[in-house]
Amino acid sequence: MKMIIAVVQDKDSNRLTDALAENDFKTTKLSTTGGFLREGNTTFMIGCEDGEVDDALEIIRNNCSQREQMVAPISPMGGNADSYIPKPVKVEVGGATVFILPIDSFFQF
Amino acid sequence: MKMIIAVVQDKDSNRLTDALAENDFKTTKLSTTGGFLREGNTTFMIGCEDGEVDDALEIIRNNCSQREQMVAPISPMGGNADSYIPKPVKVEVGGATVFILPIDSFFQF
Amino acid sequence: MKMIIAVVQDKDSNRLTDALAENDFKTTKLSTTGGFLREGNTTFMIGCEDGEVDDALEIIRNNCSQREQMVAPISPMGGNADSYIPKPVKVEVGGATVFILPIDSFFQF
Ligand code: NI
Ligand code: NI
Ligand code: NI
Repeated sequence: MKMIIAVVQDKDSNRLTDALAENDFKTTKLSTTGGFLREGNTTFMIGCEDGEVDDALEIIRNNCSQREQMVAPISPMGGNADSYIPKPVKVEVGGATVFILPIDSFFQF
Repeated sequence: MKMIIAVVQDKDSNRLTDALAENDFKTTKLSTTGGFLREGNTTFMIGCEDGEVDDALEIIRNNCSQREQMVAPISPMGGNADSYIPKPVKVEVGGATVFILPIDSFFQF
Repeated sequence: MKMIIAVVQDKDSNRLTDALAENDFKTTKLSTTGGFLREGNTTFMIGCEDGEVDDALEIIRNNCSQREQMVAPISPMGGNADSYIPKPVKVEVGGATVFILPIDSFFQF
């Protein structure tokens, strides 16, 4: 068995939870912060058979890959809303950092 | 050494904490959600010697095994409390999902 | 690769976060409680190359080692503040419990 530890952005967390559940993966989620990605992320612990790791990775990649998104920037403080048309800007969102750890044994009580 | 990762229901968390401490196991607890069990669970990380794993597993099994419990159901909304005697129902509670991971090395600073 | 799991006191958490970032270590932090140390601790997950483990350990040791600190004790309830000069007492602060786990593989999406 393997333990998959996947750190993803909060915004992709619900979608990944659903996709993993639909494929019968059992997951435990931790609320985490910091470093691997921008602030505010969720860490998934997924225990699975060796032969299921590739499927889980594909689901993570399909739901959490880093991608570009157009967002409307916040209007500057004190700006005149009538005269100012904010131009959408590209930002990188998503992304996943994934570690596969070996498991010696597994028990269910 | 081994790292025991045990996901248990919140309701069994305090009892397991006490039982592990009484047997000199050092634990760190994470508040977690989701999948391995019903919502609202606690994940224990227990670092221990290889020869202590069986003792730890027995403590987890004794304090967190899945079992049936009789609970009084909530009275239906708008029900007449005088005429309605709720019949207790059996529910499954508890349960633990436990992974044993190898540890390369351990340090205490 | 290795997964470093370091449980440190909350009071050392920000300092360790900064020191690890300055040395280009990527970290994910969990808010944890209990056993390895006094209540209120932070668990760092650090993924790194095998050859970087010693550097990471040195940073953890330099920022989180257990040490003595003089603290002014809380005045006793009902004590007379004019007549009572609290004598500072030594307490142990800090400390880190660190596990190094093997990683089979690593992915970034
Ligand atoms: Ni296996
Ligand atoms: Ni060992
Ligand atoms: Ni390696």
